[in-house]
Amino acid sequence: VITAILRGSVRLDHIGIAVADLQAAELLYTVALGGRLLDREELAGEHVRLVFIDAAGTLFELLTPTADDGPLTRFLHVRGEGLHHLAFEVADLEATLRDAAAAGMRVVDEHPRRGARGRRIAFLHPSAARGVLVELVQRPQG
Amino acid sequence: VITAILRGSVRLDHIGIAVADLQAAELLYTVALGGRLLDREELAGEHVRLVFIDAAGTLFELLTPTADDGPLTRFLHVRGEGLHHLAFEVADLEATLRDAAAAGMRVVDEHPRRGARGRRIAFLHPSAARGVLVELVQRPQG
Repeated sequence: VITAILRGSVRLDHIGIAVADLQAAELLYTVALGGRLLDREELAGEHVRLVFIDAAGTLFELLTPTADDGPLTRFLHVRGEGLHHLAFEVADLEATLRDAAAAGMRVVDEHPRRGARGRRIAFLHPSAARGVLVELVQRPQG
Repeated sequence: VITAILRGSVRLDHIGIAVADLQAAELLYTVALGGRLLDREELAGEHVRLVFIDAAGTLFELLTPTADDGPLTRFLHVRGEGLHHLAFEVADLEATLRDAAAAGMRVVDEHPRRGARGRRIAFLHPSAARGVLVELVQRPQG
């Protein structure tokens, strides 16, 4: 049974792209696609380095692993570079995670954790959204 | 050498999602994501059935194959359901294809062809954009 899990104002926050060569990807999205570099960030605990680029009216998150194991490294090994996830901004991340669990959706993160740009984030499992890895994002309040 | 191939006003037109079960995917994007069904279309020559849904401020194209062979069937067989391509709207599709070829980018369609919603479209090869399959879209003029 499919129920509404993303209530209220939901919007696409960013498109996540997994890359092996972060510098080459940054050049592609800034030069070829005419984008604007917004931010570079490393999440040491997650073993990931991120570049945020505003291009074509959309926020792109380029992500590359900084360790030899972990899900992102495995993703690149199996699938190669390419589309990785979609992130949606929600107003109430806990409530959305509760709704998702109640709807029988498998989640990767049962509780919100700290992501890039000071956001609280949580991932749903790809099986929850027909093969699309979905990140839920909530902006800092105040 | 990376050069600007997408000149002028470029914007994300849609996100393409490959699905095996189109009806289930349509329910997911309309009900769970709160989207609005815009259009259903079958491109007989391409052996693909499409559903367009406006959700989270973004246009999603759900696509499923209608034949047992072809690239979309192979995609689903190898990767399963999930993120398939990004489509960017450009002002001049021929000029963009020329720019892409001049930049050494591999293209799938050397010349524009007719796509969904009366658009002229052309695909770049995933190797042109670090593993992301890119569709270029031009609106009908007039």
